[in-house]
Amino acid sequence: MKTPATPSLISGIIAGDTLSLSRAITVVESMRSEDREQALQLVDGVYNQRKAALRIGVTGIPGVGKSTFIEKLGLEIVNSGLKLAVLAVDPSSTRSAGSILGDKTRMEDLSKHPNAFIRPSPSGGTLGGVAAKTRESMLLCEAAGFDVVLVETVGVGQSETEVINITDTFLMLAMPGTGDELQGIKRGIMETADIIVINKADGDNLNLANKAKKQLEMALHLFPEHESKWRPCVMKASALHNEGVDEVWKMIKLRQDTIERNGWLAEQRRQQQLREFQRLSEEAFYSMALRQFGGSNALAPIQEGLEKGNTNEYGAALELLSKLN
Amino acid sequence: MKTPATPSLISGIIAGDTLSLSRAITVVESMRSEDREQALQLVDGVYNQRKAALRIGVTGIPGVGKSTFIEKLGLEIVNSGLKLAVLAVDPSSTRSAGSILGDKTRMEDLSKHPNAFIRPSPSGGTLGGVAAKTRESMLLCEAAGFDVVLVETVGVGQSETEVINITDTFLMLAMPGTGDELQGIKRGIMETADIIVINKADGDNLNLANKAKKQLEMALHLFPEHESKWRPCVMKASALHNEGVDEVWKMIKLRQDTIERNGWLAEQRRQQQLREFQRLSEEAFYSMALRQFGGSNALAPIQEGLEKGNTNEYGAALELLSKLN
Repeated sequence: MKTPATPSLISGIIAGDTLSLSRAITVVESMRSEDREQALQLVDGVYNQRKAALRIGVTGIPGVGKSTFIEKLGLEIVNSGLKLAVLAVDPSSTRSAGSILGDKTRMEDLSKHPNAFIRPSPSGGTLGGVAAKTRESMLLCEAAGFDVVLVETVGVGQSETEVINITDTFLMLAMPGTGDELQGIKRGIMETADIIVINKADGDNLNLANKAKKQLEMALHLFPEHESKWRPCVMKASALHNEGVDEVWKMIKLRQDTIERNGWLAEQRRQQQLREFQRLSEEAFYSMALRQFGGSNALAPIQEGLEKGNTNEYGAALELLSKLN
Repeated sequence: MKTPATPSLISGIIAGDTLSLSRAITVVESMRSEDREQALQLVDGVYNQRKAALRIGVTGIPGVGKSTFIEKLGLEIVNSGLKLAVLAVDPSSTRSAGSILGDKTRMEDLSKHPNAFIRPSPSGGTLGGVAAKTRESMLLCEAAGFDVVLVETVGVGQSETEVINITDTFLMLAMPGTGDELQGIKRGIMETADIIVINKADGDNLNLANKAKKQLEMALHLFPEHESKWRPCVMKASALHNEGVDEVWKMIKLRQDTIERNGWLAEQRRQQQLREFQRLSEEAFYSMALRQFGGSNALAPIQEGLEKGNTNEYGAALELLSKLN
């Protein structure tokens, strides 16, 4: 299928046409370098015609009930009259593979709702690249009129820290476990969470959830105050029984309100924008230099020499530098 | 202090002179782009005169007893007559800062041993860059005659997955906790560990350690077999009481032996080498293109326009692309 021309995609997106949005996201996600310029044109084309959404990042290890939670939170959002886009960042982990969003049956009720748009990202590719592409998709969603964009990340590997770089509020799901209160909490991630939700806090789990909540609150007190002045909080919920999810949504709005008023929202987005330009300029420089050098094919003889042991990677890099000068 | 000329540093390193090695590592770690070519020349210059060391990566969250463990493992290694270099990768985490290797008092006995060389890496810089620089430092250590290189990473953020890309064997430290059996285990990391050591398995902790060992072993069984055919194992140790550390060292040697015989060691190093060349060529392309464009200063007006909101990051990237073409 041929991708429609950029102007028609742009006007389609602005008009809120989901098919145009989907096609534009496909361009953004493309690994083909020749699609890259169109991707930039698409995002640039809608940039000034969009209103920034409330951008939420959600993480949590498999088993924590992430799909159910996102579905319930999503229904809370769309039922309040807002339009919601759910994007998933799923870099395959170093050693295992597998997509977190195989199909829409994962969030059946939400995916049927007219105000919801669910889009899995392809796995693979460089990680920085995946988060960057998700950011571009997010901006396209905003142009299509979505009020809230929820970026889901699989709780493995590096994706979480990447997602902090593109969202306003970072939500971490944890769960109470039998004798393993902090199950699902990665300490490196904990210090970046704005809201921690202990999911599955129901029935026999309730005592454990209360204990975990206290532990987490104590642990959070050890971290220094964040620039945003926002104190991360710990909440309990049972997505399965739809308990506490509405409170989480209220807390997200409270956080957004707080950082909007104290200026952190603007500052954080400004930093994200500058970081993104840095990445985009590196991308541009690299593609230009590679083209001048004769494209990826021109690297093949060097790689062959490496494989044969005729040279080493550092010698090869020096050779490259001398040819480029 | 002026850095000595490349040939004299190279011959110093080959002669096993630690001062030359330290100075060369300083060049490798330099953030100044004008030092980059010398860094490549140094590594290229020693490349064929070195013997690859046994390369071990060690990770574990703060509190797991990493310093004590590395010191005891290190003493085990140097006392067996081998020369050991300990390098530390410490990218500051997204929100907190702090160096894991402030001084040598952290591993007092080891640092005094004539066969040991301990070198902290500066924090900061891009992460991929930090692991890459550590790889270059590692090769220099090998040229200086070190038989074993141990790369330590702080168990926060993304450094672990990076370190897998430069070492032969990845060791993860965990600890038994009160009612938190998997404390210190990040699941995303677990599947990449070759050896998991439950440290602090002593006194009152012993029961908990046994329980944790069983849990971990069960969890490991869920992972598919790795290409290396090596089955990750779980061991107990008490570095403080110097118990079990010798067994860990034996296991590391067994693993090395196994992957050397079945060919995985060579294959893994080949992959690491190709990945490194990819990164080095990107670095070379980028620096060339930036220079052609007029250096970082030439980007300033665009960045200013961004800050003022005259353009957006995607429009700016398109502008850049058009100027480069």
